[in-house]
Amino acid sequence: MTDKHLSTQFDAELSGISNRVLEMGGLVEAQVAQALYALTQFSGETASQVLQQEERVNQFEVEIDRDLSAIIARRQPTARDLRLLIAVSRTIGNLERVGDEAARIARTVQRLINTGVSSRLRLPVADLDFEANLALAQLRKALDAFARLDTARALEVLKQDDQIDQEFDGLLRKLITYMMEDPRTISSSIDLVFVAKAIERVGDHAKNLAEAIIYVVKGTDVRHASVEAVENVVR
Amino acid sequence: MTDKHLSTQFDAELSGISNRVLEMGGLVEAQVAQALYALTQFSGETASQVLQQEERVNQFEVEIDRDLSAIIARRQPTARDLRLLIAVSRTIGNLERVGDEAARIARTVQRLINTGVSSRLRLPVADLDFEANLALAQLRKALDAFARLDTARALEVLKQDDQIDQEFDGLLRKLITYMMEDPRTISSSIDLVFVAKAIERVGDHAKNLAEAIIYVVKGTDVRHASVEAVENVVR
Repeated sequence: MTDKHLSTQFDAELSGISNRVLEMGGLVEAQVAQALYALTQFSGETASQVLQQEERVNQFEVEIDRDLSAIIARRQPTARDLRLLIAVSRTIGNLERVGDEAARIARTVQRLINTGVSSRLRLPVADLDFEANLALAQLRKALDAFARLDTARALEVLKQDDQIDQEFDGLLRKLITYMMEDPRTISSSIDLVFVAKAIERVGDHAKNLAEAIIYVVKGTDVRHASVEAVENVVR
Repeated sequence: MTDKHLSTQFDAELSGISNRVLEMGGLVEAQVAQALYALTQFSGETASQVLQQEERVNQFEVEIDRDLSAIIARRQPTARDLRLLIAVSRTIGNLERVGDEAARIARTVQRLINTGVSSRLRLPVADLDFEANLALAQLRKALDAFARLDTARALEVLKQDDQIDQEFDGLLRKLITYMMEDPRTISSSIDLVFVAKAIERVGDHAKNLAEAIIYVVKGTDVRHASVEAVENVVR
C-alpha cells in the first residue's frame, strides 16, 4: 500500500484490516491442512479440532465485514482504497468458504470413522494428498500475493488453477474404477469424491482471491476474463 | 425502500440497480429451469442454450458491481443505503454462482448425451425433479423477497433450506443403491450425484440472498446465526 493518504489514522485502519484478513487466511489454511491430516490418518480428534475452529472463522468474516462497512460509511475512501475494501470483502467471503470446505472434509472423516468403514476397507485416501497439496500451495500463494499486493504472484495462481482441475478429473476416474472393482466401496468412495471436490473448490477460492488482488492494484475486474487477457492487464 | 433521500437522482440510481439485479435473477432462474429441462428430456439443444447465457450472467455481475463502486465513491450513502449496496454486491455474486450451477448441469447433460449413456441406461433423472423444484421455488421466493425487501418472506426461505438438504441426502442414498445394483451405471450416476449437489447449492445461494435481505432491512448480519436467532431479528 504505497498510496499517500491524508489521514494516517485511515492508513492504520486499512493495514489493521489487512492483517486480520491474513490472520483469518492463516487460520483457514491450517484448517484445510488439518482436515487432510485427519483424513489420511483417520483421526477423529483432528477432525473435531477442525470443526471447533469453524465458529472463529465465521466470526472473523462477520467482524471484518462490519468494520469494512463502518470505514466506508465514516471515511470517503479514494477509488483505490474503495477497491481495496471491496476486494477485502470478497476475500473474506472466499476464505470463509474455504473454511466450509475444510469442515466438510472433517465431517466426512467423522462419518467414515463412525461407520467403521475406515478400518474395514482400504480407501485410496493417499491419492487425495497430491491434489490437496496443490490446492494448499495455491491458497498460500494467493494469501502471500494479498499480503504484498503482488499481481505477478496472483497471476501465477490463476495460471495454475487448471492443474488442480485436471488432478480432480484424474482422481474421479480412479475412484470410479475403484467402485466398479469393488461395489462395497461405493458409499465411502462417494464420500471421497466429495472430498476431492472440496479440495478442488479450495483451489477455486484461491483463484478468486488472486482475481481480487488484481482488481485492487489494476482496477480491472478480471473475474470472467481469459488467462491471456489477465496477463495483459498485469503487465 | 421507504427512506427519504435528499437526492431523487440517487433514488433513481438505486432502483435502477435493484431492477437490474431482478433482471439478472430472472435470467439465472430461467437458466436453472432450462438446465433441468435439458436433463430430464436429454436435450442437447437446451443444454447449449443454457451455456450461451453464461456470458450474459457474467456481464451482469461485472457491470452491476462496477456501478455499485461508482455510486459508493460518488455519493455518501447513508448507513442503510450502504447496506443495500453491499447486499446487492453479495446478491449478484450469489446469482452468478447459481448461473454456474446451471452451466454445470448443462455440461453434464452434454456429456451424458455425447457418451450415449442417456439412451443406453435408464437413468433416474426424474428423481432429481422434486429437489430441483424445491430449489427453484426457494430461488424465486428469495428474489421476490428482494424485490419487496420483505424479511418475513426471506425468513421463510431460511426455514425451508433444511428440506432441500434432506432431499439431497435421500437422492444420494437412492443413487448409491442404484450404483450397487448395477455397477455399469456408476460413472453416469456420479454425474447425477453432482447434479443433485448443484441443485442443493442453488438452494444455498437462495438462502444467502435471504440473509442479505435481512441485513439490508434490519442491519444485522445473520449469516451464521441459527434460525431461531434470525426469527428474533425479523420480528
